[in-house]
Amino acid sequence: MALTSEQQAEIASLRLEPTLTSRPTVPAMEEILARPIEVLDHGFLRVVDYMGDDSAVVQAARVSYGRGTRKTSEDAGLIRYLMRHRHSTPFEMCEIKFHVKLPVFVARQWIRHRMASVNEYSARYSILDREFYLPDLAQVSAQSSSNRQGRSEALDADKAHRVLNLLRDDANRCYEHYEELLDEERYGLARELARMNLTLNTYTQWYWKIDLHNFMHFLALRADPHAQYEIRVYAEKMLEILRAWVPQTAVAFEEYRLGAFTFSAGMLRVLQRQLSGEVVAQENSGLTKREWSEMQAALQGA
Amino acid sequence: MALTSEQQAEIASLRLEPTLTSRPTVPAMEEILARPIEVLDHGFLRVVDYMGDDSAVVQAARVSYGRGTRKTSEDAGLIRYLMRHRHSTPFEMCEIKFHVKLPVFVARQWIRHRMASVNEYSARYSILDREFYLPDLAQVSAQSSSNRQGRSEALDADKAHRVLNLLRDDANRCYEHYEELLDEERYGLARELARMNLTLNTYTQWYWKIDLHNFMHFLALRADPHAQYEIRVYAEKMLEILRAWVPQTAVAFEEYRLGAFTFSAGMLRVLQRQLSGEVVAQENSGLTKREWSEMQAALQGA
Amino acid sequence: MALTSEQQAEIASLRLEPTLTSRPTVPAMEEILARPIEVLDHGFLRVVDYMGDDSAVVQAARVSYGRGTRKTSEDAGLIRYLMRHRHSTPFEMCEIKFHVKLPVFVARQWIRHRMASVNEYSARYSILDREFYLPDLAQVSAQSSSNRQGRSEALDADKAHRVLNLLRDDANRCYEHYEELLDEERYGLARELARMNLTLNTYTQWYWKIDLHNFMHFLALRADPHAQYEIRVYAEKMLEILRAWVPQTAVAFEEYRLGAFTFSAGMLRVLQRQLSGEVVAQENSGLTKREWSEMQAALQGA
Amino acid sequence: MALTSEQQAEIASLRLEPTLTSRPTVPAMEEILARPIEVLDHGFLRVVDYMGDDSAVVQAARVSYGRGTRKTSEDAGLIRYLMRHRHSTPFEMCEIKFHVKLPVFVARQWIRHRMASVNEYSARYSILDREFYLPDLAQVSAQSSSNRQGRSEALDADKAHRVLNLLRDDANRCYEHYEELLDEERYGLARELARMNLTLNTYTQWYWKIDLHNFMHFLALRADPHAQYEIRVYAEKMLEILRAWVPQTAVAFEEYRLGAFTFSAGMLRVLQRQLSGEVVAQENSGLTKREWSEMQAALQGA
Repeated sequence: MALTSEQQAEIASLRLEPTLTSRPTVPAMEEILARPIEVLDHGFLRVVDYMGDDSAVVQAARVSYGRGTRKTSEDAGLIRYLMRHRHSTPFEMCEIKFHVKLPVFVARQWIRHRMASVNEYSARYSILDREFYLPDLAQVSAQSSSNRQGRSEALDADKAHRVLNLLRDDANRCYEHYEELLDEERYGLARELARMNLTLNTYTQWYWKIDLHNFMHFLALRADPHAQYEIRVYAEKMLEILRAWVPQTAVAFEEYRLGAFTFSAGMLRVLQRQLSGEVVAQENSGLTKREWSEMQAALQGA
Repeated sequence: MALTSEQQAEIASLRLEPTLTSRPTVPAMEEILARPIEVLDHGFLRVVDYMGDDSAVVQAARVSYGRGTRKTSEDAGLIRYLMRHRHSTPFEMCEIKFHVKLPVFVARQWIRHRMASVNEYSARYSILDREFYLPDLAQVSAQSSSNRQGRSEALDADKAHRVLNLLRDDANRCYEHYEELLDEERYGLARELARMNLTLNTYTQWYWKIDLHNFMHFLALRADPHAQYEIRVYAEKMLEILRAWVPQTAVAFEEYRLGAFTFSAGMLRVLQRQLSGEVVAQENSGLTKREWSEMQAALQGA
Repeated sequence: MALTSEQQAEIASLRLEPTLTSRPTVPAMEEILARPIEVLDHGFLRVVDYMGDDSAVVQAARVSYGRGTRKTSEDAGLIRYLMRHRHSTPFEMCEIKFHVKLPVFVARQWIRHRMASVNEYSARYSILDREFYLPDLAQVSAQSSSNRQGRSEALDADKAHRVLNLLRDDANRCYEHYEELLDEERYGLARELARMNLTLNTYTQWYWKIDLHNFMHFLALRADPHAQYEIRVYAEKMLEILRAWVPQTAVAFEEYRLGAFTFSAGMLRVLQRQLSGEVVAQENSGLTKREWSEMQAALQGA
Repeated sequence: MALTSEQQAEIASLRLEPTLTSRPTVPAMEEILARPIEVLDHGFLRVVDYMGDDSAVVQAARVSYGRGTRKTSEDAGLIRYLMRHRHSTPFEMCEIKFHVKLPVFVARQWIRHRMASVNEYSARYSILDREFYLPDLAQVSAQSSSNRQGRSEALDADKAHRVLNLLRDDANRCYEHYEELLDEERYGLARELARMNLTLNTYTQWYWKIDLHNFMHFLALRADPHAQYEIRVYAEKMLEILRAWVPQTAVAFEEYRLGAFTFSAGMLRVLQRQLSGEVVAQENSGLTKREWSEMQAALQGA
């Protein structure tokens, strides 16, 4: 359970009373605003604010203001066109802000997306909670032998239990020593130093704000099957929020980005030969084994 | 008059019906939302959307969520602290979006602020209106002799009238030829080519979106007396909007940025000597003449 | 001819005497360093400086420093892998700086690429030269009827001549009035005001610095057949420079970006059906006419 | 000692044989190129490449190319002018690239500077070394009571020794378990999971590239006495490198940024009163206690 009942109560109190606005409003977003969505064992994300909707994308693409309105029925087509041709600036016109609680090693991957604004909990200034990530049994997985930066199947239950015990004991011991180091009766060590004793699965939290274009770029990389599971689960929850927020944009994103595949010049030549009836094998394709298998996967996975 | 009655009507129709939201709302901004504020002879700016308020800045600075709330009375002090120490990330948590109509030569200065999102009217795609900037008589000014990139007092009325006639005639003639080049009966020249015949005072328009931190950076540079008049008038209107949107932030911005002055190491040494009773002149100050006069101006202008 | 012999001499004098360095050096770049390459009728570009080479990309991708060296023979494969999977950060490790002379309307498109550093000639501070762009006869083209933002075939020679006369006369007259406005004997108008009388084909110049990743993004958009001819000719010269500078990266860029095509989820379904022997037409493809023709073009153009 | 003799040998081999270049070259930088400078107990930084020098800043500021050369004697004055008036774009025209080895908790602060390019050692892909940061005795300090995010004086030697033992034991135990988790004979846990057991003082490394403007912004924040000691020591070494690389820029930076102080509007009013002979105390200054003491510190520290 990610949130104590005390935390739940506090978050509820953060939800503002509804007021009237003449800004674009998305009812489905109003529903979820401020409410935490649980992720991993102690993490969460919640939408703190948003700006714009599908029609704000369209409005920016049609800056040619003053020429009379176009039909709303054409909006979806325009959004698809923008997405297909990677005209990204109209998607920059919407913005979303999250409050996220996440393990430090996930935060380290996440922060590499520079086109976002971040305010993180400061462990120089405050004391971190005793909360650290421990994977589900099903996620305690072996190193992949084919993919140097991936994992393969789960360890057997017995091994997995021992792994979890190891992780839990070390995190607990490190946290206890962290508290001891901070304790004024004992050491009174500076917070900015004591924190170095914590393990990388300790939870941190931040406010994270990003525009719609860069948000989709984040999702394309982090909701991808090659992303590490622990960040992917956040991205998957965010993909659902994308669908609630900007439904037409989300459909176009799944059609032209998530579900798409880029064929290289060499792959296009292979396709041409195949479509003209020739049987092509990797050996005479001009592609490397890796390219060949990536291409086959794209054609079968479709 | 910047807007025809037709344009006024159209803009009025763009103002959305109020709906309920649980997002932070600023009544003073709701008042002005979507309504054009006239600038120069044919330009305008209008707030299209905004996200966040003073409390969103405070909230991000206090990410230490879950620790109980602090008193609102301390918010202004926290905002002043953030501004004074240039802790800029909490100010990135708010966002504002404008629709702006402005002369091309102003747009060329404006666009140099890269930390913003822009969708501009495309003269490859559409035909520009016959609207170009002509300064007020009072702004038809001579080249400054002291400042290589500034202007000094206005030309005498007779000369100014002749200047305006010259500018008007050239802009008109160029625009008429632009129309002639586009005319399918005459030449049918591609729009992307024909536009090169227009003068730099032709009006363009765009949607421009920026976060509060970068917005204040823009204002600090462009509401400054050294900024060119034609961009400064936009910045001054935006400064009023800043005051309506985030009043506590605006006060801190004027105290610690607009009204502030940075003393160099050498200037600090001069101040020390002066405060200890020594009479210091430029000659024995260790400062260049230019630094000396900048320092004196700061001390007198305060 | 873009450069007077006086300018040629001056540029020659800017080329530094060779000195020794332990930084990565690219002989083909040393050849062209500082030398202007002519573009359009008065424009040019020249490489002012560069940092890094193909091996700097590889080095960054292999940060796992200290593990012993890998074979150089694998470098090209690694670069291809990075390009295919859009691992862009290693390409950010190289940098190139240009001096460019270009018409203002081209500069207005170019500046939209925000991830670059720019210092432009200031018309507030200095006086612009009497140089403006006039297209070659072959480029005086009609508006495209199929593409709202493109041009089609050239106008007939007689019309084209009249178009050029119009453009030339207006640019000349505007420039003469610009000089008159600046003339202290006549008006002595401030430079920042007088410039507004110039036409958009007036030449400006700037220093432009960008990292290799963002440089390729610029090239992908601006060396594209849909880019306006007047910016594309700059991009095409730069593409040749890319090939000289980082030959392995350039090959990968042409294979996986310039020569590639992204198939949407729907297009992949069509491909599957076709490869399994089904005859698919636009009508039963599930694709719009536009998507269908884009897909066919990609398959034929390969 | 940060580097084993094996590592030293390897680094030496990375230093390229000198070749001729017509690019701007800085002899003092050639001296230090590729050579590691030790920082903390196992960290280092080394300059991998650089682009531009003081004259490249001047060149960009004088884009008004073709107007004849100005005297080099005026370069320093121009650089000072640019720095004083925060004309930052000419400083973006130089670039520097470092290889840095640093503890993870320092990397987490450092990465907040978004205007830089980074390639970090991947613990998903490779195994981290058994190297973690332990402070010097003199740096094992108590929490500051006046500054919530700072440290005060060192703990007494006995306590400090016990703190170090705690930190060392936990880091060692966590690392041993990390190895055990990775061991295929034992668990064979995926690297991307096993790493979460490491403590935040584990060393990582990266290539880090930044332009001169943003580099100085980094130094202004991180070479500041309020920065955490463990990042400040890196910044201080880099400040020395700045002095070697662009000596005129470095002098201006120390005069107008590092050694400068910004007086708010209220502080300027106090100064005026003081300079006109009035005795002003905090109580009647209109400043808060905190502002008053910051102002006094600036005037005394000068």
